[in-house]
Amino acid sequence: MTGRDGGADLRPIGNSPVVVLVRPQLADNIGACARAMANGGLFHLRLVAPRDGWPQEKAWRNSSGADRILDAATVHPTVADAVADLHHVFATCPRPRHIVKPVLTARGAVAELRQICARDLRAGLLFGPERAGLDNDDMAEADALVRFPLNPAFMSLNLAQAVMVMAYEWWTAADDTVPRRLMTNESQVATKGRLDNFLTHLVDQLDACGFLRNLPKRPGMVRNLRHLFQRGEVTEQELRTLHGVVTELAIGRRRRGRLETETEA
Amino acid sequence: MTGRDGGADLRPIGNSPVVVLVRPQLADNIGACARAMANGGLFHLRLVAPRDGWPQEKAWRNSSGADRILDAATVHPTVADAVADLHHVFATCPRPRHIVKPVLTARGAVAELRQICARDLRAGLLFGPERAGLDNDDMAEADALVRFPLNPAFMSLNLAQAVMVMAYEWWTAADDTVPRRLMTNESQVATKGRLDNFLTHLVDQLDACGFLRNLPKRPGMVRNLRHLFQRGEVTEQELRTLHGVVTELAIGRRRRGRLETETEA
Repeated sequence: MTGRDGGADLRPIGNSPVVVLVRPQLADNIGACARAMANGGLFHLRLVAPRDGWPQEKAWRNSSGADRILDAATVHPTVADAVADLHHVFATCPRPRHIVKPVLTARGAVAELRQICARDLRAGLLFGPERAGLDNDDMAEADALVRFPLNPAFMSLNLAQAVMVMAYEWWTAADDTVPRRLMTNESQVATKGRLDNFLTHLVDQLDACGFLRNLPKRPGMVRNLRHLFQRGEVTEQELRTLHGVVTELAIGRRRRGRLETETEA
Repeated sequence: MTGRDGGADLRPIGNSPVVVLVRPQLADNIGACARAMANGGLFHLRLVAPRDGWPQEKAWRNSSGADRILDAATVHPTVADAVADLHHVFATCPRPRHIVKPVLTARGAVAELRQICARDLRAGLLFGPERAGLDNDDMAEADALVRFPLNPAFMSLNLAQAVMVMAYEWWTAADDTVPRRLMTNESQVATKGRLDNFLTHLVDQLDACGFLRNLPKRPGMVRNLRHLFQRGEVTEQELRTLHGVVTELAIGRRRRGRLETETEA
Protein backbone atom coordinates (compact mmCIF):
# COMPACT_ATOMS: atom_id res chain seq x y z
CA MET A 1 0.00 0.00 0.00
CA THR A 2 2.87 2.39 0.63
CA GLY A 3 5.44 0.48 -1.40
CA ARG A 4 7.77 2.42 -3.64
CA ASP A 5 7.72 0.22 -6.73
CA GLY A 6 4.51 1.36 -8.40
CA GLY A 7 2.62 2.04 -5.18
CA ALA A 8 -0.86 0.84 -4.34
CA ASP A 9 -2.92 -1.07 -6.89
CA LEU A 10 -5.20 1.87 -7.66
CA ARG A 11 -7.53 2.13 -10.61
CA PRO A 12 -10.61 4.17 -11.52
CA ILE A 13 -13.73 3.21 -9.56
CA GLY A 14 -16.72 3.67 -11.84
CA ASN A 15 -17.19 7.05 -13.51
CA SER A 16 -15.59 9.53 -11.14
CA PRO A 17 -14.84 13.25 -11.50
CA VAL A 18 -11.55 14.51 -12.86
CA VAL A 19 -9.51 16.59 -10.39
CA VAL A 20 -7.96 19.57 -12.20
CA LEU A 21 -5.18 21.35 -10.31
CA VAL A 22 -4.83 24.78 -11.86
CA ARG A 23 -1.27 26.21 -11.87
CA PRO A 24 -0.17 24.22 -8.79
CA GLN A 25 3.08 25.51 -7.32
CA LEU A 26 4.55 22.74 -5.18
CA ALA A 27 5.12 19.18 -6.34
CA ASP A 28 4.78 18.11 -2.68
CA ASN A 29 1.22 19.37 -2.78
CA ILE A 30 0.46 17.56 -6.02
CA GLY A 31 1.60 14.34 -4.34
CA ALA A 32 -0.50 15.08 -1.26
CA CYS A 33 -3.50 15.74 -3.53
CA ALA A 34 -3.02 12.37 -5.24
CA ARG A 35 -2.91 10.70 -1.82
CA ALA A 36 -6.16 12.43 -0.79
CA MET A 37 -7.77 11.46 -4.09
CA ALA A 38 -6.82 7.82 -3.46
CA ASN A 39 -8.31 8.01 0.04
CA GLY A 40 -11.63 9.09 -1.45
CA GLY A 41 -11.67 6.78 -4.47
CA LEU A 42 -10.87 9.43 -7.10
CA PHE A 43 -8.37 8.63 -9.85
CA HIS A 44 -8.27 11.09 -12.75
CA LEU A 45 -5.80 13.96 -12.30
CA ARG A 46 -5.07 16.82 -14.71
CA LEU A 47 -2.51 19.55 -14.13
CA VAL A 48 -2.80 22.96 -15.76
CA ALA A 49 0.61 24.63 -16.19
CA PRO A 50 2.31 23.29 -13.03
CA ARG A 51 4.80 25.98 -11.99
CA ASP A 52 7.85 23.75 -11.72
CA GLY A 53 7.08 21.54 -14.69
CA TRP A 54 6.12 17.88 -14.78
CA PRO A 55 6.91 15.16 -13.82
CA GLN A 56 8.48 16.03 -10.46
CA GLU A 57 9.99 13.26 -8.33
CA LYS A 58 8.82 15.02 -5.15
CA ALA A 59 5.17 14.42 -6.03
CA TRP A 60 5.68 10.66 -6.08
CA ARG A 61 7.66 10.79 -2.82
CA ASN A 62 4.83 12.66 -1.09
CA SER A 63 1.93 10.56 -2.38
CA SER A 64 2.34 7.64 0.04
CA GLY A 65 1.92 5.15 -2.74
CA ALA A 66 -0.74 6.87 -4.87
CA ASP A 67 1.75 6.52 -7.76
CA ARG A 68 -0.78 5.22 -10.26
CA ILE A 69 -2.75 8.47 -10.03
CA LEU A 70 0.40 10.51 -10.70
CA ASP A 71 1.53 8.13 -13.46
CA ALA A 72 -1.78 8.68 -15.26
CA ALA A 73 -1.94 12.47 -14.73
CA THR A 74 -1.97 14.66 -17.83
CA VAL A 75 -0.62 18.20 -18.27
CA HIS A 76 -2.53 20.96 -20.03
CA PRO A 77 -1.57 24.49 -21.05
CA THR A 78 -4.90 26.10 -20.09
CA VAL A 79 -8.04 25.40 -18.07
CA ALA A 80 -10.05 25.47 -21.32
CA ASP A 81 -7.84 22.70 -22.72
CA ALA A 82 -8.07 20.65 -19.49
CA VAL A 83 -11.89 20.73 -19.44
CA ALA A 84 -12.60 20.57 -23.19
CA ASP A 85 -13.90 16.98 -23.11
CA LEU A 86 -15.88 17.36 -19.86
CA HIS A 87 -19.64 17.99 -19.63
CA HIS A 88 -19.77 19.66 -16.22
CA VAL A 89 -17.14 21.60 -14.32
CA PHE A 90 -17.31 22.76 -10.71
CA ALA A 91 -14.71 25.16 -9.33
CA THR A 92 -13.69 25.31 -5.69
CA CYS A 93 -13.50 28.89 -4.51
CA PRO A 94 -13.31 30.09 -0.91
CA ARG A 95 -14.32 33.70 -1.51
CA PRO A 96 -16.42 34.13 -4.63
CA ARG A 97 -17.50 37.66 -5.51
CA HIS A 98 -18.80 39.86 -8.27
CA ILE A 99 -20.00 37.03 -10.43
CA VAL A 100 -23.35 35.45 -11.10
CA LYS A 101 -22.92 31.77 -10.43
CA PRO A 102 -24.51 28.93 -8.52
CA VAL A 103 -22.62 28.26 -5.29
CA LEU A 104 -22.70 24.78 -3.82
CA THR A 105 -21.56 23.38 -0.51
CA ALA A 106 -19.04 20.53 -0.76
CA ARG A 107 -21.78 18.03 0.08
CA GLY A 108 -24.22 19.67 -2.32
CA ALA A 109 -21.63 19.61 -5.10
CA VAL A 110 -20.89 15.94 -4.54
CA ALA A 111 -24.59 15.07 -4.62
CA GLU A 112 -24.78 16.72 -8.04
CA LEU A 113 -21.51 15.15 -9.20
CA ARG A 114 -22.82 11.71 -8.25
CA GLN A 115 -25.92 12.35 -10.40
CA ILE A 116 -23.87 13.68 -13.31
CA CYS A 117 -21.50 10.70 -13.21
CA ALA A 118 -24.41 8.26 -12.91
CA ARG A 119 -25.66 9.70 -16.23
CA ASP A 120 -22.29 8.79 -17.81
CA LEU A 121 -21.36 12.42 -18.28
CA ARG A 122 -17.79 13.50 -17.52
CA ALA A 123 -17.33 15.93 -14.64
CA GLY A 124 -14.37 17.93 -13.41
CA LEU A 125 -13.43 19.71 -10.22
CA LEU A 126 -11.10 22.73 -10.43
CA PHE A 127 -8.74 23.63 -7.59
CA GLY A 128 -6.77 26.87 -7.74
CA PRO A 129 -3.10 27.51 -7.00
CA GLU A 130 -1.89 27.50 -3.38
CA ARG A 131 -1.75 31.24 -2.73
CA ALA A 132 -4.11 33.01 -5.07
CA GLY A 133 -6.82 30.46 -5.81
CA LEU A 134 -8.65 30.43 -9.12
CA ASP A 135 -8.85 33.68 -11.05
CA ASN A 136 -11.97 35.12 -12.67
CA ASP A 137 -11.23 33.59 -16.08
CA ASP A 138 -10.78 30.14 -14.52
CA MET A 139 -14.13 30.45 -12.78
CA ALA A 140 -15.83 31.46 -16.03
CA GLU A 141 -15.09 27.91 -17.27
CA ALA A 142 -17.21 26.39 -14.50
CA ASP A 143 -20.93 25.62 -14.21
CA ALA A 144 -20.90 26.32 -10.51
CA LEU A 145 -18.61 27.19 -7.61
CA VAL A 146 -18.02 25.03 -4.57
CA ARG A 147 -17.55 26.78 -1.26
CA PHE A 148 -16.87 24.60 1.78
CA PRO A 149 -18.70 25.55 4.93
CA LEU A 150 -15.76 26.33 7.23
CA ASN A 151 -14.86 28.71 10.03
CA PRO A 152 -15.13 32.20 8.47
CA ALA A 153 -12.45 33.36 10.91
CA PHE A 154 -9.94 30.99 9.28
CA MET A 155 -10.60 30.07 5.67
CA SER A 156 -6.97 29.46 4.64
CA LEU A 157 -7.26 25.89 3.39
CA ASN A 158 -4.27 23.86 2.25
CA LEU A 159 -4.65 22.61 -1.35
CA ALA A 160 -4.48 18.93 -0.41
CA GLN A 161 -6.94 19.56 2.44
CA ALA A 162 -9.41 21.02 -0.07
CA VAL A 163 -8.99 17.95 -2.28
CA MET A 164 -9.37 15.77 0.83
CA VAL A 165 -12.71 17.33 1.77
CA MET A 166 -14.10 16.77 -1.73
CA ALA A 167 -12.66 13.24 -1.99
CA TYR A 168 -14.04 12.38 1.45
CA GLU A 169 -17.48 13.70 0.50
CA TRP A 170 -17.29 11.81 -2.81
CA TRP A 171 -16.62 8.53 -1.03
CA THR A 172 -19.06 9.15 1.80
CA ALA A 173 -21.92 9.96 -0.56
CA ALA A 174 -21.92 6.34 -1.73
CA ASP A 175 -21.08 4.77 1.61
CA ASP A 176 -23.72 3.13 3.76
CA THR A 177 -21.77 2.35 6.93
CA VAL A 178 -24.07 2.77 9.91
CA PRO A 179 -23.09 5.76 12.09
CA ARG A 180 -22.58 3.54 15.16
CA ARG A 181 -22.09 -0.16 15.50
CA LEU A 182 -20.54 -2.37 18.16
CA MET A 183 -17.43 -4.14 16.97
CA THR A 184 -17.18 -7.46 18.80
CA ASN A 185 -14.36 -9.94 18.80
CA GLU A 186 -16.39 -12.86 17.41
CA SER A 187 -18.56 -12.81 20.55
CA GLN A 188 -22.17 -11.71 20.19
CA VAL A 189 -24.05 -9.03 22.07
CA ALA A 190 -25.76 -10.78 24.99
CA THR A 191 -29.53 -11.05 25.11
CA LYS A 192 -31.50 -9.55 27.97
CA GLY A 193 -32.01 -13.05 29.37
CA ARG A 194 -28.26 -13.68 29.60
CA LEU A 195 -27.71 -10.29 31.16
CA ASP A 196 -30.45 -11.07 33.69
CA ASN A 197 -28.70 -14.34 34.59
CA PHE A 198 -25.57 -12.40 35.44
CA LEU A 199 -27.44 -9.75 37.41
CA THR A 200 -29.18 -12.48 39.41
CA HIS A 201 -25.78 -14.08 40.12
CA LEU A 202 -24.41 -10.70 41.20
CA VAL A 203 -27.34 -9.94 43.49
CA ASP A 204 -27.19 -13.44 45.03
CA GLN A 205 -23.54 -12.91 45.93
CA LEU A 206 -24.21 -9.41 47.23
CA ASP A 207 -26.99 -10.85 49.41
CA ALA A 208 -24.62 -13.58 50.62
CA CYS A 209 -21.87 -11.13 51.57
CA GLY A 210 -24.27 -8.77 53.29
CA PHE A 211 -23.83 -5.80 50.89
CA LEU A 212 -27.64 -5.63 50.52
CA ARG A 213 -28.51 -6.21 54.16
CA ASN A 214 -30.34 -2.87 54.47
CA LEU A 215 -33.73 -4.27 53.41
CA PRO A 216 -35.61 -0.97 52.87
CA LYS A 217 -32.80 0.22 50.57
CA ARG A 218 -32.26 -3.14 48.87
CA PRO A 219 -34.77 -2.76 45.96
CA GLY A 220 -33.39 0.63 44.95
CA MET A 221 -29.77 -0.57 45.15
CA VAL A 222 -30.57 -3.59 43.01
CA ARG A 223 -32.35 -1.42 40.47
CA ASN A 224 -29.41 1.01 40.29
CA LEU A 225 -27.02 -1.85 39.57
CA ARG A 226 -29.39 -3.15 36.88
CA HIS A 227 -29.57 0.34 35.32
CA LEU A 228 -25.78 0.54 35.14
CA PHE A 229 -25.39 -2.79 33.34
CA GLN A 230 -28.30 -2.07 30.98
CA ARG A 231 -26.73 1.18 29.76
CA GLY A 232 -24.54 -0.28 27.04
CA GLU A 233 -24.37 -3.44 25.04
CA VAL A 234 -22.53 -6.28 26.80
CA THR A 235 -21.20 -9.24 24.86
CA GLU A 236 -21.55 -12.89 25.88
CA GLN A 237 -17.77 -13.12 26.34
CA GLU A 238 -17.88 -10.12 28.68
CA LEU A 239 -20.73 -11.68 30.66
CA ARG A 240 -18.66 -14.82 31.14
CA THR A 241 -15.83 -12.64 32.42
CA LEU A 242 -18.19 -10.79 34.75
CA HIS A 243 -19.56 -14.07 36.14
CA GLY A 244 -15.96 -15.08 36.83
CA VAL A 245 -15.15 -11.75 38.46
CA VAL A 246 -18.11 -12.02 40.86
CA THR A 247 -17.42 -15.66 41.68
CA GLU A 248 -13.71 -15.08 42.32
CA LEU A 249 -14.35 -11.96 44.41
CA ALA A 250 -16.86 -13.95 46.50
CA ILE A 251 -14.49 -16.89 46.95
CA GLY A 252 -11.66 -14.53 47.79
CA ARG A 253 -13.85 -12.87 50.36
CA ARG A 254 -14.79 -16.18 51.94
CA ARG A 255 -11.10 -17.20 52.04
CA ARG A 256 -10.16 -13.90 53.64
CA GLY A 257 -13.08 -14.38 56.02
CA ARG A 258 -11.67 -17.78 57.03
CA LEU A 259 -8.20 -16.32 57.43
CA GLU A 260 -9.53 -13.51 59.61
CA THR A 261 -11.52 -15.99 61.70
CA GLU A 262 -8.43 -18.16 62.05
CA THR A 263 -6.33 -15.16 63.05
CA GLU A 264 -8.89 -14.10 65.64
CA ALA A 265 -9.08 -17.62 66.99
CA MET B 1 -5.46 36.13 8.74
CA THR B 2 -2.17 34.51 7.81
CA GLY B 3 0.03 37.09 9.52
CA ARG B 4 3.12 35.95 11.35
CA ASP B 5 2.86 38.05 14.48
CA GLY B 6 0.40 36.08 16.56
CA GLY B 7 -1.57 34.78 13.60
CA ALA B 8 -5.33 34.83 13.18
CA ASP B 9 -7.59 36.04 15.98
CA LEU B 10 -8.73 32.55 16.94
CA ARG B 11 -10.53 31.64 20.12
CA PRO B 12 -12.71 28.77 21.33
CA ILE B 13 -16.17 28.67 19.74
CA GLY B 14 -18.60 27.35 22.34
CA ASN B 15 -17.81 24.02 23.98
CA SER B 16 -15.78 22.12 21.41
CA PRO B 17 -13.88 18.82 21.62
CA VAL B 18 -10.22 18.67 22.58
CA VAL B 19 -7.92 17.29 19.90
CA VAL B 20 -5.33 14.97 21.47
CA LEU B 21 -2.36 14.12 19.26
CA VAL B 22 -0.79 10.99 20.71
CA ARG B 23 3.02 10.74 20.32
CA PRO B 24 3.10 12.91 17.16
CA GLN B 25 6.41 12.66 15.31
CA LEU B 26 6.71 15.70 13.07
CA ALA B 27 6.26 19.29 14.20
CA ASP B 28 5.21 20.14 10.63
CA ASN B 29 2.25 17.82 11.10
CA ILE B 30 1.34 19.38 14.43
CA GLY B 31 1.22 22.76 12.70
CA ALA B 32 -0.87 21.35 9.85
CA CYS B 33 -3.25 19.83 12.41
CA ALA B 34 -3.66 23.22 14.12
CA ARG B 35 -4.46 24.77 10.74
CA ALA B 36 -7.09 22.11 10.04
CA MET B 37 -8.55 22.59 13.52
CA ALA B 38 -8.87 26.33 12.85
CA ASN B 39 -10.61 25.60 9.54
CA GLY B 40 -13.24 23.60 11.35
CA GLY B 41 -13.66 25.83 14.41
CA LEU B 42 -11.81 23.60 16.88
CA PHE B 43 -9.38 25.19 19.35
CA HIS B 44 -8.20 22.93 22.19
CA LEU B 45 -5.04 20.97 21.42
CA ARG B 46 -3.18 18.53 23.68
CA LEU B 47 0.03 16.72 22.79
CA VAL B 48 0.99 13.42 24.38
CA ALA B 49 4.77 12.91 24.41
CA PRO B 50 5.61 14.64 21.11
CA ARG B 51 8.68 12.83 19.76
CA ASP B 52 10.86 15.90 19.20
CA GLY B 53 9.75 17.82 22.30
CA TRP B 54 7.69 20.98 22.51
CA PRO B 55 7.53 23.80 21.51
CA GLN B 56 8.90 23.41 17.97
CA GLU B 57 9.24 26.47 15.75
CA LYS B 58 8.34 24.37 12.69
CA ALA B 59 4.81 23.82 13.99
CA TRP B 60 4.13 27.55 14.04
CA ARG B 61 5.67 27.99 10.58
CA ASN B 62 3.39 25.30 9.14
CA SER B 63 0.14 26.41 10.78
CA SER B 64 -0.66 29.27 8.36
CA GLY B 65 -1.55 31.57 11.23
CA ALA B 66 -3.28 29.15 13.60
CA ASP B 67 -0.73 30.30 16.20
CA ARG B 68 -3.24 30.78 18.99
CA ILE B 69 -4.10 27.09 18.93
CA LEU B 70 -0.42 26.13 19.21
CA ASP B 71 0.19 28.81 21.87
CA ALA B 72 -2.56 27.29 24.02
CA ALA B 73 -1.59 23.63 23.44
CA THR B 74 -0.59 21.60 26.49
CA VAL B 75 1.83 18.69 26.72
CA HIS B 76 1.08 15.48 28.63
CA PRO B 77 3.21 12.45 29.47
CA THR B 78 0.45 9.87 28.86
CA VAL B 79 -2.94 9.52 27.22
CA ALA B 80 -4.46 8.91 30.66
CA ASP B 81 -3.10 12.26 31.83
CA ALA B 82 -4.31 14.06 28.71
CA VAL B 83 -7.89 12.80 29.06
CA ALA B 84 -8.20 12.80 32.86
CA ASP B 85 -10.56 15.81 32.98
CA LEU B 86 -12.66 14.76 29.99
CA HIS B 87 -16.03 12.99 30.14
CA HIS B 88 -16.00 11.30 26.76
CA VAL B 89 -13.13 10.23 24.54
CA PHE B 90 -13.33 9.00 20.95
CA ALA B 91 -10.27 7.51 19.27
CA THR B 92 -9.67 7.62 15.53
CA CYS B 93 -8.51 4.25 14.28
CA PRO B 94 -8.34 3.08 10.66
CA ARG B 95 -8.07 -0.65 11.30
CA PRO B 96 -9.58 -1.65 14.64
CA ARG B 97 -9.43 -5.33 15.56
CA HIS B 98 -9.68 -7.77 18.41
CA ILE B 99 -11.47 -5.40 20.74
CA VAL B 100 -15.05 -4.95 21.81
CA LYS B 101 -15.85 -1.32 21.14
CA PRO B 102 -18.44 0.84 19.45
CA VAL B 103 -17.19 2.01 16.06
CA LEU B 104 -18.53 5.29 14.67
CA THR B 105 -18.25 6.91 11.27
CA ALA B 106 -16.73 10.40 11.29
CA ARG B 107 -20.20 11.90 10.80
CA GLY B 108 -21.72 9.64 13.42
CA ALA B 109 -18.99 10.56 15.91
CA VAL B 110 -19.51 14.26 15.31
CA ALA B 111 -23.26 13.94 15.81
CA GLU B 112 -22.55 12.37 19.22
CA LEU B 113 -19.82 14.91 20.04
CA ARG B 114 -22.25 17.73 19.29
CA GLN B 115 -24.72 16.22 21.76
CA ILE B 116 -22.06 15.65 24.41
CA CYS B 117 -20.76 19.22 24.09
CA ALA B 118 -24.30 20.62 24.16
CA ARG B 119 -24.67 18.94 27.58
CA ASP B 120 -21.60 20.87 28.79
CA LEU B 121 -19.54 17.72 29.08
CA ARG B 122 -15.92 17.78 27.92
CA ALA B 123 -15.04 15.56 24.97
CA GLY B 124 -11.76 14.57 23.40
CA LEU B 125 -10.66 13.11 20.10
CA LEU B 126 -7.52 10.97 19.99
CA PHE B 127 -5.31 10.79 16.91
CA GLY B 128 -2.42 8.32 16.81
CA PRO B 129 1.17 8.85 15.65
CA GLU B 130 1.92 9.15 11.92
CA ARG B 131 3.16 5.63 11.20
CA ALA B 132 1.74 3.26 13.76
CA GLY B 133 -1.54 4.83 14.82
CA LEU B 134 -2.93 4.39 18.32
CA ASP B 135 -1.89 1.26 20.19
CA ASN B 136 -4.20 -1.05 22.12
CA ASP B 137 -3.62 0.70 25.45
CA ASP B 138 -4.45 4.10 23.90
CA MET B 139 -7.71 2.72 22.55
CA ALA B 140 -8.63 1.30 25.94
CA GLU B 141 -8.91 4.94 27.14
CA ALA B 142 -11.68 5.66 24.65
CA ASP B 143 -15.47 5.23 24.78
CA ALA B 144 -15.61 4.50 21.08
CA LEU B 145 -13.52 4.32 17.93
CA VAL B 146 -13.94 6.51 14.89
CA ARG B 147 -13.33 4.94 11.52
CA PHE B 148 -13.70 7.16 8.46
CA PRO B 149 -15.48 5.62 5.52
CA LEU B 150 -12.71 5.78 2.88
CA ASN B 151 -11.42 3.74 -0.02
CA PRO B 152 -10.44 0.37 1.50
CA ALA B 153 -7.79 0.05 -1.24
CA PHE B 154 -5.98 3.12 0.14
CA MET B 155 -6.51 3.88 3.82
CA SER B 156 -3.15 5.59 4.45
CA LEU B 157 -4.41 8.91 5.79
CA ASN B 158 -2.08 11.78 6.64
CA LEU B 159 -2.44 12.91 10.27
CA ALA B 160 -3.53 16.45 9.38
CA GLN B 161 -5.97 15.02 6.82
CA ALA B 162 -7.57 12.92 9.55
CA VAL B 163 -7.89 16.00 11.75
CA MET B 164 -9.27 17.90 8.73
CA VAL B 165 -12.03 15.38 8.14
CA MET B 166 -13.14 15.53 11.78
CA ALA B 167 -12.86 19.35 11.94
CA TYR B 168 -14.80 19.67 8.69
CA GLU B 169 -17.53 17.36 9.97
CA TRP B 170 -17.59 19.27 13.28
CA TRP B 171 -18.17 22.57 11.50
CA THR B 172 -20.59 21.16 8.93
CA ALA B 173 -22.79 19.56 11.57
CA ALA B 174 -23.79 23.02 12.82
CA ASP B 175 -23.83 24.71 9.43
CA ASP B 176 -27.08 25.42 7.62
CA THR B 177 -25.81 26.69 4.28
CA VAL B 178 -28.19 25.53 1.55
CA PRO B 179 -26.58 22.94 -0.75
CA ARG B 180 -27.12 25.16 -3.83
CA ARG B 181 -27.84 28.83 -4.16
CA LEU B 182 -27.35 31.36 -6.95
CA MET B 183 -24.83 34.02 -6.04
CA THR B 184 -25.83 37.21 -7.82
CA ASN B 185 -23.90 40.43 -8.09
CA GLU B 186 -26.56 42.59 -6.41
CA SER B 187 -28.92 41.82 -9.29
CA GLN B 188 -31.95 39.64 -8.51
CA VAL B 189 -33.13 36.49 -10.23
CA ALA B 190 -35.62 37.59 -12.88
CA THR B 191 -39.28 36.69 -12.57
CA LYS B 192 -41.02 34.60 -15.21
CA GLY B 193 -42.72 37.78 -16.47
CA ARG B 194 -39.39 39.52 -17.12
CA LEU B 195 -38.02 36.44 -18.81
CA ASP B 196 -41.14 36.30 -21.00
CA ASN B 197 -40.60 39.94 -22.03
CA PHE B 198 -37.16 39.03 -23.27
CA LEU B 199 -38.33 35.90 -25.07
CA THR B 200 -41.06 37.96 -26.80
CA HIS B 201 -38.40 40.47 -27.85
CA LEU B 202 -36.20 37.68 -29.18
CA VAL B 203 -39.01 36.02 -31.11
CA ASP B 204 -40.12 39.38 -32.60
CA GLN B 205 -36.63 39.97 -33.92
CA LEU B 206 -36.35 36.40 -35.22
CA ASP B 207 -39.67 36.90 -37.03
CA ALA B 208 -38.40 40.19 -38.44
CA CYS B 209 -35.21 38.65 -39.80
CA GLY B 210 -36.97 35.65 -41.24
CA PHE B 211 -35.38 33.00 -38.98
CA LEU B 212 -38.89 31.71 -38.15
CA ARG B 213 -40.32 31.93 -41.64
CA ASN B 214 -41.11 28.19 -41.80
CA LEU B 215 -44.59 28.54 -40.31
CA PRO B 216 -45.31 24.84 -39.61
CA LYS B 217 -42.01 24.57 -37.70
CA ARG B 218 -42.30 27.98 -36.00
CA PRO B 219 -44.22 26.91 -32.83
CA GLY B 220 -41.76 24.10 -32.05
CA MET B 221 -38.72 26.30 -32.68
CA VAL B 222 -40.11 29.00 -30.38
CA ARG B 223 -40.83 26.45 -27.68
CA ASN B 224 -37.30 24.99 -27.91
CA LEU B 225 -35.81 28.45 -27.43
CA ARG B 226 -38.09 29.02 -24.45
CA HIS B 227 -37.03 25.66 -22.93
CA LEU B 228 -33.36 26.63 -23.23
CA PHE B 229 -33.77 29.95 -21.40
CA GLN B 230 -36.03 28.42 -18.74
CA ARG B 231 -33.39 25.83 -17.79
CA GLY B 232 -31.47 27.93 -15.31
CA GLU B 233 -32.05 31.02 -13.26
CA VAL B 234 -31.41 34.26 -15.17
CA THR B 235 -30.80 37.53 -13.33
CA GLU B 236 -32.39 40.88 -14.24
CA GLN B 237 -28.96 42.25 -15.13
CA GLU B 238 -28.37 39.33 -17.47
CA LEU B 239 -31.79 39.89 -19.09
CA ARG B 240 -30.86 43.53 -19.77
CA THR B 241 -27.66 42.29 -21.40
CA LEU B 242 -29.59 39.74 -23.48
CA HIS B 243 -32.06 42.45 -24.63
CA GLY B 244 -29.03 44.49 -25.71
CA VAL B 245 -27.44 41.54 -27.50
CA VAL B 246 -30.60 40.84 -29.52
CA THR B 247 -31.16 44.50 -30.35
CA GLU B 248 -27.56 45.06 -31.44
CA LEU B 249 -27.44 41.87 -33.50
CA ALA B 250 -30.67 42.93 -35.23
CA ILE B 251 -29.37 46.45 -35.92
CA GLY B 252 -26.07 45.03 -37.16
CA ARG B 253 -27.93 42.73 -39.46
CA ARG B 254 -30.03 45.58 -40.85
CA ARG B 255 -26.85 47.64 -41.37
CA ARG B 256 -25.17 44.74 -43.13
CA GLY B 257 -28.36 44.25 -45.12
CA ARG B 258 -28.14 47.89 -46.29
CA LEU B 259 -24.48 47.50 -47.16
CA GLU B 260 -25.16 44.35 -49.15
CA THR B 261 -28.03 46.07 -50.99
CA GLU B 262 -25.77 49.04 -51.76
CA THR B 263 -23.01 46.74 -53.04
CA GLU B 264 -25.46 44.87 -55.26
CA ALA B 265 -26.82 48.14 -56.62
